[in-house]
Amino acid sequence: MPTSIFTERTKPIIGITMGDSNGIGPEILVKALDTLKQNDSFIPVVYGNAALLNHIAQEYQLSVTFTEKDNIPEIHTDSPDIPVIQCGARAIPYTPGKLDPLAGANAALWIRAATEDASAKRIDGMVTCPVNKDGMLKGGCPYAGHTPMLAALTQTEECYMSLFSSNMRIVHITAHLSMKDAVAAVKKERIYRTIKQCYRTLTQMGFESPRIAVAGLNPHAGEMGAFGTEELEEIQPAVDRARQENIQCTGPLSPDTVFSRMSSGEFDVVVAMYHDQGHIPFKLINMDEGVHATLGLPFVRTSPDHGTAFDIAGTGKARAESMCAALLLSAQWAMHALKQREATA
Amino acid sequence: MPTSIFTERTKPIIGITMGDSNGIGPEILVKALDTLKQNDSFIPVVYGNAALLNHIAQEYQLSVTFTEKDNIPEIHTDSPDIPVIQCGARAIPYTPGKLDPLAGANAALWIRAATEDASAKRIDGMVTCPVNKDGMLKGGCPYAGHTPMLAALTQTEECYMSLFSSNMRIVHITAHLSMKDAVAAVKKERIYRTIKQCYRTLTQMGFESPRIAVAGLNPHAGEMGAFGTEELEEIQPAVDRARQENIQCTGPLSPDTVFSRMSSGEFDVVVAMYHDQGHIPFKLINMDEGVHATLGLPFVRTSPDHGTAFDIAGTGKARAESMCAALLLSAQWAMHALKQREATA
Repeated sequence: MPTSIFTERTKPIIGITMGDSNGIGPEILVKALDTLKQNDSFIPVVYGNAALLNHIAQEYQLSVTFTEKDNIPEIHTDSPDIPVIQCGARAIPYTPGKLDPLAGANAALWIRAATEDASAKRIDGMVTCPVNKDGMLKGGCPYAGHTPMLAALTQTEECYMSLFSSNMRIVHITAHLSMKDAVAAVKKERIYRTIKQCYRTLTQMGFESPRIAVAGLNPHAGEMGAFGTEELEEIQPAVDRARQENIQCTGPLSPDTVFSRMSSGEFDVVVAMYHDQGHIPFKLINMDEGVHATLGLPFVRTSPDHGTAFDIAGTGKARAESMCAALLLSAQWAMHALKQREATA
Repeated sequence: MPTSIFTERTKPIIGITMGDSNGIGPEILVKALDTLKQNDSFIPVVYGNAALLNHIAQEYQLSVTFTEKDNIPEIHTDSPDIPVIQCGARAIPYTPGKLDPLAGANAALWIRAATEDASAKRIDGMVTCPVNKDGMLKGGCPYAGHTPMLAALTQTEECYMSLFSSNMRIVHITAHLSMKDAVAAVKKERIYRTIKQCYRTLTQMGFESPRIAVAGLNPHAGEMGAFGTEELEEIQPAVDRARQENIQCTGPLSPDTVFSRMSSGEFDVVVAMYHDQGHIPFKLINMDEGVHATLGLPFVRTSPDHGTAFDIAGTGKARAESMCAALLLSAQWAMHALKQREATA
């Protein structure tokens, strides 16, 4: 009798949600799994539509095939096909580039199913293909995008948007806030919690004692209060508190040099004080291989660092480098998490 | 009778202030002029101390020599030596790495003399070696650094800090303000004036119709007011007004992609909404060859993109790439300005 991937787990099972079927999600999913077919660091399970994925594979002459399955325990190790859990999604729209509420509704259904499996530890990590926020809302889903949806479904109070590449790792204390609100959110409690989460995640990813740099908020980190007092009143106390807990943590450092110091190897990660402080340097260096990760959820979640790209959907032009990187980071992170769970079991 | 460089001006005269004699200023000055000795795009005139510069040239076995002169008209084209206007500076401290008020006082004296010559058009551009703000203040100079001093001496109301490299040009609407104050300074009048100044300077540098990109303030440029209204209420009106005056101006654009769009050639310059929005991407890419320029002064002024570096002063480790780039940009900018002046004379 064939072995279930679920009962005999030797490597992490990574759930991949197909995203908006009219965006570039299905295309990058097929391309990435084709690129990584010799990579045996994880077992992929797709939440999406097998027929559409097979159609795309055929269209681009890629040698991966997808088979529909009902649930994780039903998936066996003896099949070369990639299993797809369709979970009752309705008719699949495939008019690339078009905003369709039904595509949004299906995308939400797959996210929900993958979240349930991840929460129940039937899968070890989740990689999400891009969705269209408008499409989700118009499709009847109450959440505008992945992060609010995942946070709500798992009752997570605080998530942290982070960016990963081979030599840059950035965790933000806030994400989509106006600069005015972002500046007001630079508070010691929040910074401390971000440092802690950063430490927990990097340790879980295999860094023994991650070297964490904390950026300042103001130019030159405020020059001892000459322009801005957040460094003295908020950031320094948070850094001090983390250091008292034996976390290797340095800061506040001048924002305009800390990122090159990280990329040249001095630090493993930078805690950024606002969205663009991290996104500007990251996107400048890592245009194609960047990965998003959500820290603070009860499971591993990554995604490629781009959106649905409706303008090029269906043209075959979408590049899968970021999706490949998201899968590999998820696999590496989930593998370490699995080992840690076994060690403490 | 030998010709004076002043009366027979065929190329721009660039005044170079030596900066704090205990910093790396004298060293990068000598190294840069040695590197550029075959470059005939400008005539260098130093405001500093000839004996110290000759001592440094000898120490590092560089083949440039410096001769003391009293004033610009006295400098003649027939000498291979580099003229140095000492302008009554008192004993020259040379204890590298030490904060000395006298070094600050001398540095201020040279800046003042160069400013007078630039204002009177006896020189065509100014390149300043780094000073120590504390040293200047303790030496009795009422200004903390170059920009406030130059602005005060020339009665310039608004200066704009800008950064230049081969493929990035960034002009900031504000510089050393706290983030809180910088966000509050994002106002249409100021943005419009910055765009105008940016247009004027780039035209003066030889760009026929500079392509100006204006960055947003908020993440993703606010997503139509979803997080932050400055794009709609302040930035867009400023861009529209500039466009009505036939300035090629685009924006507000998403801050986390506009800098790579510029460096790949889509724009000639980006107007940045705050210090770090421009400094973070610029310093990440242009660690050694970056140049500062002050826009809005009545004359050309550039400087290397680093400070006195007291920690390596006197060790011979200082790199002169940024100083070379500052000299060449100043020469190019001043040459165009000279031609324009002649054309309109």
